[in-house]
Amino acid sequence: MAGKAGGALITGIGDDCAVFRPRPGEDLLFTTDLLIEDVHFTRSTHSAIEVGHKALARGLSDIAAMGGDPRFCLVSIALAEWNDRRWVDGFYRGLLALARRFECKLAGGDLSHADKLTCDIVVCGGAPRGRAVLRSGARVGDVIYVSGALGKPWRTHRRPMPRIEIGRALRGRATAAMDLSDGLSIDLHRLCEASGVAAELEHVPIVKGSTIEQALHGGEDYELLFTMPPRRRPPPKVHRIGVIAAGTGGLVRLNGRPVPPLGYDHFRR
Amino acid sequence: MAGKAGGALITGIGDDCAVFRPRPGEDLLFTTDLLIEDVHFTRSTHSAIEVGHKALARGLSDIAAMGGDPRFCLVSIALAEWNDRRWVDGFYRGLLALARRFECKLAGGDLSHADKLTCDIVVCGGAPRGRAVLRSGARVGDVIYVSGALGKPWRTHRRPMPRIEIGRALRGRATAAMDLSDGLSIDLHRLCEASGVAAELEHVPIVKGSTIEQALHGGEDYELLFTMPPRRRPPPKVHRIGVIAAGTGGLVRLNGRPVPPLGYDHFRR
Repeated sequence: MAGKAGGALITGIGDDCAVFRPRPGEDLLFTTDLLIEDVHFTRSTHSAIEVGHKALARGLSDIAAMGGDPRFCLVSIALAEWNDRRWVDGFYRGLLALARRFECKLAGGDLSHADKLTCDIVVCGGAPRGRAVLRSGARVGDVIYVSGALGKPWRTHRRPMPRIEIGRALRGRATAAMDLSDGLSIDLHRLCEASGVAAELEHVPIVKGSTIEQALHGGEDYELLFTMPPRRRPPPKVHRIGVIAAGTGGLVRLNGRPVPPLGYDHFRR
Repeated sequence: MAGKAGGALITGIGDDCAVFRPRPGEDLLFTTDLLIEDVHFTRSTHSAIEVGHKALARGLSDIAAMGGDPRFCLVSIALAEWNDRRWVDGFYRGLLALARRFECKLAGGDLSHADKLTCDIVVCGGAPRGRAVLRSGARVGDVIYVSGALGKPWRTHRRPMPRIEIGRALRGRATAAMDLSDGLSIDLHRLCEASGVAAELEHVPIVKGSTIEQALHGGEDYELLFTMPPRRRPPPKVHRIGVIAAGTGGLVRLNGRPVPPLGYDHFRR
């Protein structure tokens, strides 16, 4: 069970708690993400395997956004009446396939029942001490990048792949980073607010068939948004979308006009 | 934000992940627990403050069961239509009051919405390296104890107090421990199964007004169940309930007759 590179899971599933022995010199990152039937997926759009994949992908995307290496995860799941044995097997197959790919051990969880399938994932990641990439470090003059084209509709974007490798490449290089889970307009607004800066968008790469509105305000792209000083070379295959500017903290402009932060906000349902 | 004794929370709420810097020489414990409307509580039996308290108490009880010191927690919550601002404030008041009592910082979480209030708590605890108390160490001849009387009905037992101090006193002393969340009969069966031993119950302390059936098979007592070698002195105010015996791993007897593991089991609804 020991992982030389990344700490060791001493006790996994089967006791009151999972026991993890941290690696010296490593900071640990923690994120938790809900996945709820009819909110984040539907029975008709997502297979069991895709739901399991997506549950973990959401958490891994947050680890990627801080430049972390996945360490382990815990999964709480409340099953609905329609989740038969076969569905549950598919769910874990999807989740564990993604977990294996990123060496993220399943360390435990909880099981209950509910009217609708409800899942909460916890992912722990590691980063060398003091090297996790925060949202708050963007500086005026930095270039803004995204790791891929935006505007993916969630009904068809069913197996998002967390950008772990790109996130890792940002450690010690990006000044700020976050993942795009609620939409570029609101997420860039949050990054700028945390950094006390404004942003000037120049060009937003759009997935084929989507509109600029979907690319700006659609959620669930699971691409990374990050900033770097202008002379630093970004990782390969990312897109420059603008620059960090002086101005009211959080203000985002496209071609000089303010972009309202319209992305998905659970408080504003 | 630093905690000299127990690691430091470097970044809390507001970034993609919480960042925790572990203390050298400490193992970390992780548990996750769901709390769902009409499964673990109802609107009519539990106030908002009690729901918040109970959500965290369930996780802290698992940390206590391993002999851990609470470090931090994350809370995912999916709000239902009936959870107005006032209810949400009450929920966090109840949760944070218990968190403060045990120095367990709220480090982050997730927010969504659902048909019924659904909450998932993650608690991280710490224990000196190799000193977490597992379920699997009970040996023939050990004495079995519980930390309090059993059979508390969950509709009235609304603010369970996690047995953190007793759990801490078990480190390096108890051979096995777990918390009673599904009922003595099934939980002792699990402890014995993990340890490859059997148990002979002699006397089970019952809360006033409950029956022996409720004490044996009722869930949600949140007392600790633990075993110690016979010559070792237990912590004060705990109850001796029996001894560990040779026999089929997992078998529990009361006055010589087998006790079926009838406690609450989410698979057997």
